[in-house]
Amino acid sequence: MVKVAILGYGTVGSGVFEVIKRNQHAIVNKIGEEIEVKYVLDLKDFEDDPVTEVLTGNFDEIVNDAEVKIVCETMGGVKPAYEFTKRALESGKSVCTSNKELVEKHGPELLRIAKANKCSYLFEASVGGGIPIIRPLRTSLAQEEILSITGILNGTTNYILTKMETEGLAFDDVLRRAQEKGYAERNPDADILGFDACRKIAILTSLAYGKNVDYADITTEGITAITDKDFAYAKKMGATIKLFAKSLKKDGRYYALVAPFVVMPENPLYAVNGVFNAILLNCNMGGETMYYGKGAGKLATASAVVADVLDCAKHIGKNLDTRWDEEKLAISPIDSAVRRFFVRVSGNDEAKIQEIFGEVELFNDVVEGECGFVTGEMTEEQYRRKAAEAGNVITMIRMD
Amino acid sequence: MVKVAILGYGTVGSGVFEVIKRNQHAIVNKIGEEIEVKYVLDLKDFEDDPVTEVLTGNFDEIVNDAEVKIVCETMGGVKPAYEFTKRALESGKSVCTSNKELVEKHGPELLRIAKANKCSYLFEASVGGGIPIIRPLRTSLAQEEILSITGILNGTTNYILTKMETEGLAFDDVLRRAQEKGYAERNPDADILGFDACRKIAILTSLAYGKNVDYADITTEGITAITDKDFAYAKKMGATIKLFAKSLKKDGRYYALVAPFVVMPENPLYAVNGVFNAILLNCNMGGETMYYGKGAGKLATASAVVADVLDCAKHIGKNLDTRWDEEKLAISPIDSAVRRFFVRVSGNDEAKIQEIFGEVELFNDVVEGECGFVTGEMTEEQYRRKAAEAGNVITMIRMD
Repeated sequence: MVKVAILGYGTVGSGVFEVIKRNQHAIVNKIGEEIEVKYVLDLKDFEDDPVTEVLTGNFDEIVNDAEVKIVCETMGGVKPAYEFTKRALESGKSVCTSNKELVEKHGPELLRIAKANKCSYLFEASVGGGIPIIRPLRTSLAQEEILSITGILNGTTNYILTKMETEGLAFDDVLRRAQEKGYAERNPDADILGFDACRKIAILTSLAYGKNVDYADITTEGITAITDKDFAYAKKMGATIKLFAKSLKKDGRYYALVAPFVVMPENPLYAVNGVFNAILLNCNMGGETMYYGKGAGKLATASAVVADVLDCAKHIGKNLDTRWDEEKLAISPIDSAVRRFFVRVSGNDEAKIQEIFGEVELFNDVVEGECGFVTGEMTEEQYRRKAAEAGNVITMIRMD
Repeated sequence: MVKVAILGYGTVGSGVFEVIKRNQHAIVNKIGEEIEVKYVLDLKDFEDDPVTEVLTGNFDEIVNDAEVKIVCETMGGVKPAYEFTKRALESGKSVCTSNKELVEKHGPELLRIAKANKCSYLFEASVGGGIPIIRPLRTSLAQEEILSITGILNGTTNYILTKMETEGLAFDDVLRRAQEKGYAERNPDADILGFDACRKIAILTSLAYGKNVDYADITTEGITAITDKDFAYAKKMGATIKLFAKSLKKDGRYYALVAPFVVMPENPLYAVNGVFNAILLNCNMGGETMYYGKGAGKLATASAVVADVLDCAKHIGKNLDTRWDEEKLAISPIDSAVRRFFVRVSGNDEAKIQEIFGEVELFNDVVEGECGFVTGEMTEEQYRRKAAEAGNVITMIRMD
């Protein structure tokens, strides 16, 4: 019997409580031990909910109880989650969390504290919800050099883009519908401006290379500028448009970017639709692997937290080491990144386009009064200069 | 420094040697220890290959060397791999293997011996080549009840089906080209008749439910009967045809089947093409997750073996427990499985079709002199009776 505490009885916390109760039989079968929730920390009341038996409003009760070996931090936010996590780890209790903000901000420090106190800080649920990705990176791919990571890491934006494509709707309409269905927050900025995906790719990149990526170093563009006209061009190309969170290592330099990309069917991420997330890794030995599933949602996220709980339960008194140093990983300026660009310009001056952008693949019959084209490979800086020279760019989307 | 031995310097064994050498730096970075190959067992000579320095023809030298903590069994086949594996485990050395035949035949016994000797028997590479699937099942999904497993587990057949679809070629032509390219064996029966996929789904199902699935209990059909005409119907339906290895738990009963299926684009496996493999799991809490990558190939398979080596290196003197009892898992007869069927019959007697098969979705303009239709849900037994009654069935493919 391993006793655990849950901090916060919100969506994910109540999901953790439910997964542990409902799947107790499967858990005992697999790891040979029962998991008991001894405390749930929350200041609210939950009448008629079985949680009332174990509800407490006092964190000290949890941190001072030597029987509690594992703490699930499902409060979200930095305050007081940061302090509670530190105190739990310092008292030798492992902490499992879904809190990507805290992980992104204080991951290396919390991992160091866990190691010093022979316990673990695990955060599978912080990226990709119910998709196993953090643990595979730490275990199944420990022998690999990660060459690149490309993720669809935000379900809200993927849902919006999928609906825009399949139903021909405008961004605002789909966003409103997504908010009604609960797929988008009332304040959707963190999602639609790309910040949520940015934090997640910062975490994955830090784990892939063992050093700390500051998410402020990652160029981040959201999907608010994407229109049905862009999708009309994508369709013409046999492509779709996805919000990618990408990082890669090339010639010893590291690049990272969150932005919409034009994606061809050859990319396994092309078919990842709706609220689903997926992460495509390219490794120097095993090649491409992809991990796909629900990127959010109460039970999927909670399930990932419980997977971490079981890992800790099998390793009590031992640190599950995750390499993520406080030393900063230098992200190269995006200016030097090389790729092709899809560009829409007003007017139809093909000669001018080719004069400025060189040989391009042209689409001049998709939207009246403009044309679109795909450039050859060039750096982001070269593209910016050419776009400024042209002076009539309506929009640009990077080619995958 | 952890010392290992490799049994067999064939495709996978030489790949393991290469991955350990080339990625030594990444490995030390991740697990904080060097891995040294102290022996490679092979009876052949390999002139001018760095392996000669560590080559031995004598297994006793390896098993009697207390410095060797981990053995990679990459010989394939049962004899002498079975005996060597047992002796290695009995002497407390962990064994990591890509040998699906041995795992499928003797997995439970070898796991028991490993446990009794405080070492591990790991076999990530035995299913899905370079795709992390065995370890996620054991760790990331330990909290889940697995409701179903659907895999594209054989790269050769997936390559053949993809080429038949995209290039409109006949089965025999694609098979010959695949053999020329090395994507198919000279004797391709194990692949094209479904036996390879069958062994793999037997392993995955055993791990999902903790009991032993005998692969002889799994109804297995290959792809040799699939023609361009079937693909013409699939195209009409907006679908494709894939060889699925499936198992599922329903109402306390277990089903398993390897057979071609008609697959719609909504299934994430629809887009898995060419030699790639993928496994789609449905779990009771986290829902659907999919794992995608190279199902075969020297370095991808070797990489998975090395992942197991690193796991063992982090747990020397400890058993990594995999629940897979010798007790048999009863697979229910396929007769009672319920699904829809795609059927092609000669002639065009729609009234007779509806009289026998009930309400169907009809396609009567795809191939001359016949028509195809999709039935409603019925058991396999019901379908068989109706097909016998009709007397003019050309072919049947199950609907996913």
